Amino acid sequence: MSRPLRLHPDRLFPADPRTRDIARSLYTAVKALPILSPHGHTDPAWFATNQPFTDPASLLIVPDHYLFRMLYSQGVRLEDLGIPTRDGTPVESDPRTIWRRFAAHYHLFRGTPSRIWCDWVFAEVFGLEVALDAATADTCFDTIDAALKTDAFRPRALFERFGIEVIATTESPTDELAHHKAILDSGWSGRVVTTYRPDPVMDPEAEGFADNVARFGELAGEDISTLAGYLRAHENRRAFFRAHGATATDHGHPTAGTCALDRAFFEEIYTRALAGKASSIEAEYFRCAMLMEMARMSLDDGMVMQIHPGVHRSHNPMLFERFGPNMGADIPVQTDYVNALKALLDRHGSDPRLTVIVFTLDEDSYSRELAPLAGHYPALKLGPPWWFNDSPEGMRRFRERVTETAGFYNTVGFNDDTRAFLSIPARHDVARRMDCGFLARLVAEHRLEEDDAHELAADLAYNLAKVAYRL
Amino acid sequence: MSRPLRLHPDRLFPADPRTRDIARSLYTAVKALPILSPHGHTDPAWFATNQPFTDPASLLIVPDHYLFRMLYSQGVRLEDLGIPTRDGTPVESDPRTIWRRFAAHYHLFRGTPSRIWCDWVFAEVFGLEVALDAATADTCFDTIDAALKTDAFRPRALFERFGIEVIATTESPTDELAHHKAILDSGWSGRVVTTYRPDPVMDPEAEGFADNVARFGELAGEDISTLAGYLRAHENRRAFFRAHGATATDHGHPTAGTCALDRAFFEEIYTRALAGKASSIEAEYFRCAMLMEMARMSLDDGMVMQIHPGVHRSHNPMLFERFGPNMGADIPVQTDYVNALKALLDRHGSDPRLTVIVFTLDEDSYSRELAPLAGHYPALKLGPPWWFNDSPEGMRRFRERVTETAGFYNTVGFNDDTRAFLSIPARHDVARRMDCGFLARLVAEHRLEEDDAHELAADLAYNLAKVAYRL
Amino acid sequence: MSRPLRLHPDRLFPADPRTRDIARSLYTAVKALPILSPHGHTDPAWFATNQPFTDPASLLIVPDHYLFRMLYSQGVRLEDLGIPTRDGTPVESDPRTIWRRFAAHYHLFRGTPSRIWCDWVFAEVFGLEVALDAATADTCFDTIDAALKTDAFRPRALFERFGIEVIATTESPTDELAHHKAILDSGWSGRVVTTYRPDPVMDPEAEGFADNVARFGELAGEDISTLAGYLRAHENRRAFFRAHGATATDHGHPTAGTCALDRAFFEEIYTRALAGKASSIEAEYFRCAMLMEMARMSLDDGMVMQIHPGVHRSHNPMLFERFGPNMGADIPVQTDYVNALKALLDRHGSDPRLTVIVFTLDEDSYSRELAPLAGHYPALKLGPPWWFNDSPEGMRRFRERVTETAGFYNTVGFNDDTRAFLSIPARHDVARRMDCGFLARLVAEHRLEEDDAHELAADLAYNLAKVAYRL
Repeated sequence: MSRPLRLHPDRLFPADPRTRDIARSLYTAVKALPILSPHGHTDPAWFATNQPFTDPASLLIVPDHYLFRMLYSQGVRLEDLGIPTRDGTPVESDPRTIWRRFAAHYHLFRGTPSRIWCDWVFAEVFGLEVALDAATADTCFDTIDAALKTDAFRPRALFERFGIEVIATTESPTDELAHHKAILDSGWSGRVVTTYRPDPVMDPEAEGFADNVARFGELAGEDISTLAGYLRAHENRRAFFRAHGATATDHGHPTAGTCALDRAFFEEIYTRALAGKASSIEAEYFRCAMLMEMARMSLDDGMVMQIHPGVHRSHNPMLFERFGPNMGADIPVQTDYVNALKALLDRHGSDPRLTVIVFTLDEDSYSRELAPLAGHYPALKLGPPWWFNDSPEGMRRFRERVTETAGFYNTVGFNDDTRAFLSIPARHDVARRMDCGFLARLVAEHRLEEDDAHELAADLAYNLAKVAYRL
Repeated sequence: MSRPLRLHPDRLFPADPRTRDIARSLYTAVKALPILSPHGHTDPAWFATNQPFTDPASLLIVPDHYLFRMLYSQGVRLEDLGIPTRDGTPVESDPRTIWRRFAAHYHLFRGTPSRIWCDWVFAEVFGLEVALDAATADTCFDTIDAALKTDAFRPRALFERFGIEVIATTESPTDELAHHKAILDSGWSGRVVTTYRPDPVMDPEAEGFADNVARFGELAGEDISTLAGYLRAHENRRAFFRAHGATATDHGHPTAGTCALDRAFFEEIYTRALAGKASSIEAEYFRCAMLMEMARMSLDDGMVMQIHPGVHRSHNPMLFERFGPNMGADIPVQTDYVNALKALLDRHGSDPRLTVIVFTLDEDSYSRELAPLAGHYPALKLGPPWWFNDSPEGMRRFRERVTETAGFYNTVGFNDDTRAFLSIPARHDVARRMDCGFLARLVAEHRLEEDDAHELAADLAYNLAKVAYRL
Repeated sequence: MSRPLRLHPDRLFPADPRTRDIARSLYTAVKALPILSPHGHTDPAWFATNQPFTDPASLLIVPDHYLFRMLYSQGVRLEDLGIPTRDGTPVESDPRTIWRRFAAHYHLFRGTPSRIWCDWVFAEVFGLEVALDAATADTCFDTIDAALKTDAFRPRALFERFGIEVIATTESPTDELAHHKAILDSGWSGRVVTTYRPDPVMDPEAEGFADNVARFGELAGEDISTLAGYLRAHENRRAFFRAHGATATDHGHPTAGTCALDRAFFEEIYTRALAGKASSIEAEYFRCAMLMEMARMSLDDGMVMQIHPGVHRSHNPMLFERFGPNMGADIPVQTDYVNALKALLDRHGSDPRLTVIVFTLDEDSYSRELAPLAGHYPALKLGPPWWFNDSPEGMRRFRERVTETAGFYNTVGFNDDTRAFLSIPARHDVARRMDCGFLARLVAEHRLEEDDAHELAADLAYNLAKVAYRL
């Protein structure tokens, strides 16, 4: 009684037949464009070592907090899904058992993007022909497991099969980028670049901040006991990252705050932060001031700045204590941009040499704050719908609320922001389909000419990201 | 020149023909499912005494602040609609005159859910065949008035005709539940359960708080001069309510705030509150701390917690002074959930034995806060669109913004939250139609399989409420 | 290879064929109704002197911050678009060069309302038959330039051709209204009325406040050294404005705040404000208290109050310093109405003789605050989607979020709020099309009868504004 797994060729297109025809026509022309993935969290080791993935559960479930958070919300223990504990308490270790638990709860994902991505992976990557459920769990597991043991499913082979032109990973300044070096040295044609993500050495409230900065200084060969040395270390490490392909930095602060600090005060806070004595307000001042420094350095070295603010990380302390961060308990909060970004925009916002890409989880800011800001400041661009909003409805709301004020050309195309490597083509496919559907509606309502829509479809799928991220 | 009153069989379904066909098919299978009404404000006396309703105006207009607020907004005095004054100043007392005034302003409701509900009541309950307006007012009045005098329109007969499986009313802990007892003792098969709504004895800013608590202690047989006695009184009254069918509590605090108080401080605030000396901040602390206590007790007795926060009650002081509360002048305010619920979720959020159902009037929190929270915490579920959002567009926004992050199974189906008894089937019908329309769009866009949609339609119409409210 | 310029007769209507048919039918009946423009920023000198407009760039681009802000956001300097500097530094002065720059960037406006308005002006006002782009820039320029030199394109001729019944401009109390007097004295039939916009003499933080108030007192013939004299001056100037056609006041405060001040404190703040010593908080108190006074005066003289709050003006200080205000750098901020308006509503909100029309740039307040407030208070009405939200999607969101709670009759129709005179019919046409599309959806979904929809279409296009603005 298993059900066939079907990916309908018209999926995600508007139902109105005329609009759907236009959407299909637009999509047909862009569906095979190469994938630019300028912001994400895949593991560079995969591409450096090109070892096979071990099993379906370790590849697809255990690392994916989108998936296990939903099961957790319905009472499934993370231990039973094989999520490793911090203290080493044993958890479920049998991939098949984990897989079966996932399969038995797969109905929870009805109507969610996770379902769309997973089904794509099952059908397109592994050729499954039956829908996953408790009854088909073993068959699906066996098929995937067998495939993973073949060369065609090694990371580099998938990278090429997926048509990825370039993928960016994200590393701390204290990372030596050994995997990126290995990839560069290997002669493989795949382009895997790093991204400079300095939160661990820029956020005084990050775990192990002082140790991180000490290591950072060593790697940079700078004396980080002074602010001047610390800033030089950033310049140094940014250059090192650029030598390993980086074109962008990324900043995941609690707020989008920026501020211009008096230098003496800035130094004082830095000293206190190093000593572990910075108050919560001082830590915020430091992060705000450092975004100004990052912008200044970007003007020198051409790195694009990305700001991902507004998340209450690890909202569930019990879970954090037992399993650590990134356990699906990060919750968005209200986020201001108009006041928060002002110091940075006052100083550099009118400089077209700078590109600052801002993301939000607070959709209210789309039409009220972000579109008006991006529709004015030359340095500011809007990132695609992020995280929980990386979804069909989230994408639709983004275009509907942003386009009329900021246009299309102050946005930067799509990025997948994922560690779930196998779902990357699915995520770009959803974005291309939704953008084509949005454009098709404008055409069907005679708000956009069809040839302009064709040009825009390619811009949104490929060109805007290429330009914005300087790839 | 009167106009026929028509309820189109396809009303509220999407206009696209293919999508509409799917919606119709889904709806056909769920439209006749029994009604679960686990949260509402009908008067248990109706079902206990089964006396006929007196007249059309007293039944349909005078108690319905959705209706008279709209007329008030266009300059009609509440006195002229028969709303009783606090000081007994006479108001319009002729039902027909009130009815005519309402009929003459019925065009104000174009495009509102009130119009949908009223038209359903007129057509389906009373068999009216002409649309209400100034010209048809008397005919409509006479038909309804005559019907109300017949046995078929007594409360119990309507309850049965409406296909209500269970209805929950809402009572204060100081209520002796005589009507519920009478219903239980009567042998009538209708299931009318109470809900424990302790605001009058839990909110130090409630009118007559100290007197309420004194009466509460008497009924509970506990010494409420100490916090320990006061808490025991809650346990005692909750048990009493459970014996009268209650499966849930309900909390209408100004915020969703929860906090873990030091016991000595908690006791001190309680003492000050009893003495009428609690400051506004202390009152908030007390309410926050008491939600923690309610959760603790729910773990013991299995009662589901409902939280309805974020309303500025009685915003119009002139109206409050003259007519009292619930006069259509309650206005929603911005409401935070991420910080507010944290203390409760820290302590009990991961316990799947607890069910906390949260409502909001601040739709911005749907995708930003509530869906991410409910998609993670086992104890948290999302109530349906509430009050002003209990409307076709409100329901559409709810599903569009919540589903992709929380799925369908972290929501709890529909509840009507109304005192307008005759409109209850209409309200559930709107919800079933809108949910089927939403599911149909997902199917038409190939985002959901049609058989899954059928299963979901029944879940949203019936099963989810049954499970979540433990009915 | 130029492309034809096409305005499709069905533009902006929903794509679903049945819904589109209904929309077309509704629109056909209202498209030719006279234009009421009760809130805007055209220059009364145009209609007083009836001089020809000088050239395409000075008429269409240089004064339109919607247009040049978009080019600025993509790196075009305002100097290169002919925006005059404050210090007289020369800027581009050749209209054709400015026009070419605009044309070369016209693709930036794809999907924006500016594109819709411009194309309408090109096609309908000037009869252009090719779409604007770099290649057609000169042809378009020449055609428009030639037309502007003819009598048919003088301001009064266009006013009549556009079918404008009445247009309101906006003036400071220190304006002598010479142009309005000239129009009245000229015997021309066109109705151009002023609006009382007292921000320059009511906002202690306005540039030149004390000088403004001094001049205000002179014009009013009142001693403004006391608060009493200052308030009499307002009464006096309001009467003068009413004699020049004004039916409304307008208030562009940072917040919607209102408050009832102790008279002695009010006087003290006024004195400090005149002396340039009012703190930022005192300035806010003064603005809040003055809105109360404006409401009081409106009860006497019948002027409608408009409140346009919630904008961070001149967010880009560099641009402000070089070019002054209104350079496209005004950014909306979160705006509260529930608490802000309470003092005014407490005192006058239930008085149906008063009309206060509230606007917002914070769309979140639509369903949460503004619709519930307007659906209750007799004195409160909702203005149409404002500024960045004066767009197809903005209008759709407004109706979807407001109608179910406030109905249609607590809104006031459309106003264009523009200084771009030639685009006025295009803006009203967009509003009429979008409202007809919204109504058509309600009809197609059997939520509204078609004859009611026809009545509503005329109300939204014409009648509501006529009544609300007392025109």
